[in-house]
Amino acid sequence: MATLSPISSLSPSNLKWVRSNSSFYIRLPSSCPSFSKPTCSPMSIKALSAPVLTQDQLKKLAADKAVEYVKSGMVLGLGTGSTAAFVVAKLGELLKEGALKDIIGIPTSKRTEEQAASLGIPLSLLDHHPNIDLAIDGADEVDPELNLVKGRGGALLREKMVEAASAQFVVVADESKLVDGLGGSGLAMPVEVVQFCWSYNAKRLQSLFKEEGCEVKLRMDGDKPYVTDNSNYIVDLYFNTPIKDSRAAGAEISKLEGVVEHGLFLDMATAVIIAGSDGVTLKTK
Amino acid sequence: MATLSPISSLSPSNLKWVRSNSSFYIRLPSSCPSFSKPTCSPMSIKALSAPVLTQDQLKKLAADKAVEYVKSGMVLGLGTGSTAAFVVAKLGELLKEGALKDIIGIPTSKRTEEQAASLGIPLSLLDHHPNIDLAIDGADEVDPELNLVKGRGGALLREKMVEAASAQFVVVADESKLVDGLGGSGLAMPVEVVQFCWSYNAKRLQSLFKEEGCEVKLRMDGDKPYVTDNSNYIVDLYFNTPIKDSRAAGAEISKLEGVVEHGLFLDMATAVIIAGSDGVTLKTK
Repeated sequence: MATLSPISSLSPSNLKWVRSNSSFYIRLPSSCPSFSKPTCSPMSIKALSAPVLTQDQLKKLAADKAVEYVKSGMVLGLGTGSTAAFVVAKLGELLKEGALKDIIGIPTSKRTEEQAASLGIPLSLLDHHPNIDLAIDGADEVDPELNLVKGRGGALLREKMVEAASAQFVVVADESKLVDGLGGSGLAMPVEVVQFCWSYNAKRLQSLFKEEGCEVKLRMDGDKPYVTDNSNYIVDLYFNTPIKDSRAAGAEISKLEGVVEHGLFLDMATAVIIAGSDGVTLKTK
Repeated sequence: MATLSPISSLSPSNLKWVRSNSSFYIRLPSSCPSFSKPTCSPMSIKALSAPVLTQDQLKKLAADKAVEYVKSGMVLGLGTGSTAAFVVAKLGELLKEGALKDIIGIPTSKRTEEQAASLGIPLSLLDHHPNIDLAIDGADEVDPELNLVKGRGGALLREKMVEAASAQFVVVADESKLVDGLGGSGLAMPVEVVQFCWSYNAKRLQSLFKEEGCEVKLRMDGDKPYVTDNSNYIVDLYFNTPIKDSRAAGAEISKLEGVVEHGLFLDMATAVIIAGSDGVTLKTK
């Protein structure tokens, strides 16, 4: 099997953006064996059809591309989760190298705050910097209109606060996150609720999605309920079929007293960078 | 000065409801010196124009009237605050006397829970009793359409959850709470916000009410921020002029990420009982 080039060798300068319908993708250089189509290989048919890069490598590829949007002097929203962690790591690297300076990060979770602080990224809060130039974050699902499900990492409220305050919001994800309709992955769509009478709200949430079919589960942390940075619980919604009308669903969920925030991020992303086995694709609205 | 009859002597049987436009009021019996118009009295002009009953006595009068709505077997939402405390006390009394039985109370705060438990009122949660027959609670402001400001006691979220789940919601208040437009008392309209970046949200709240003129203050508990039963903060809004469009205001406030609940209780009250110096008035929709 061909040895993979280190991902770091895929510098922006050797990636070429190509227009394709409403999206752009990067044609990878032929010097990158991981992306060139193997014409002769000892690999089996099964190996040929399998992705060449690991999911983590794809996430890092997308994260590095997203960081190209960052300019010195910017106030940046720093997301939470495995892909966002690659973004923060890259920012730390560029800051250390001197390629970036005078950036201020607004972290969306205690975890991200700790990671960014450890890398020497100057940090602030929305209280002091209410206008953010650019936020970069991962997503759990991305639909064709760039609407998102987020919050499986548990930081949906702070993420939504920060990303709603951002002039640009760039999402980074690997191709496994693409769905035809939100809720379509069969994985959790989280809703942050106050602890008081959470099961009452869980039942009310379930009853909103009779048409789609929906299971609700309190998110656990071992044998205790998972508690968010804001001292709330998370009720995870699992849909049998994708949500029919995301905007209506978001509005109905928000109306329930005791719901603090939900994981539907609608009309917020300005660009989505998707890393897949064929390269990196940029989708904009 | 005439001696006041004990309020407890004002039993429902000697109060007479009288229709007056869209509201009812109670004509007090002439045997009640505190409510009969003094035709001859040694009091000064100042004393004549002052209310004969104290605010607490008025609250108790309204509370006792509201409790007439309670029937044995009901699931009851128990409000929070000084007027609601009179309601809970009366329920405890009737339960002890055997005049009421098989009621279940759903308290809207830890304080109310403690008071009700101490009086032997059986308690439950929305989780187990999601359909409430009747809620009784006080209000900080009541407008002519029976829309309310609530939550100066700090329990707005739990109150709204419980009262929204109630088939009937009876509000008890003294006449000082009547306003032409919500926010018109010049006192606080509370908004419960997550602790994270509360001052960012305070500024956003203030900017929603440029037309009315609005001061925002974080509610304090001594030298520390007041923390709600749900671990959140309260930002109090003080308006220079009443809110022009309460429904639009409620919707705009709810849209802000990090706002957990607000103190505008719109289209929720089914009846309001107002105790004033002229007697007790019932307003229904």
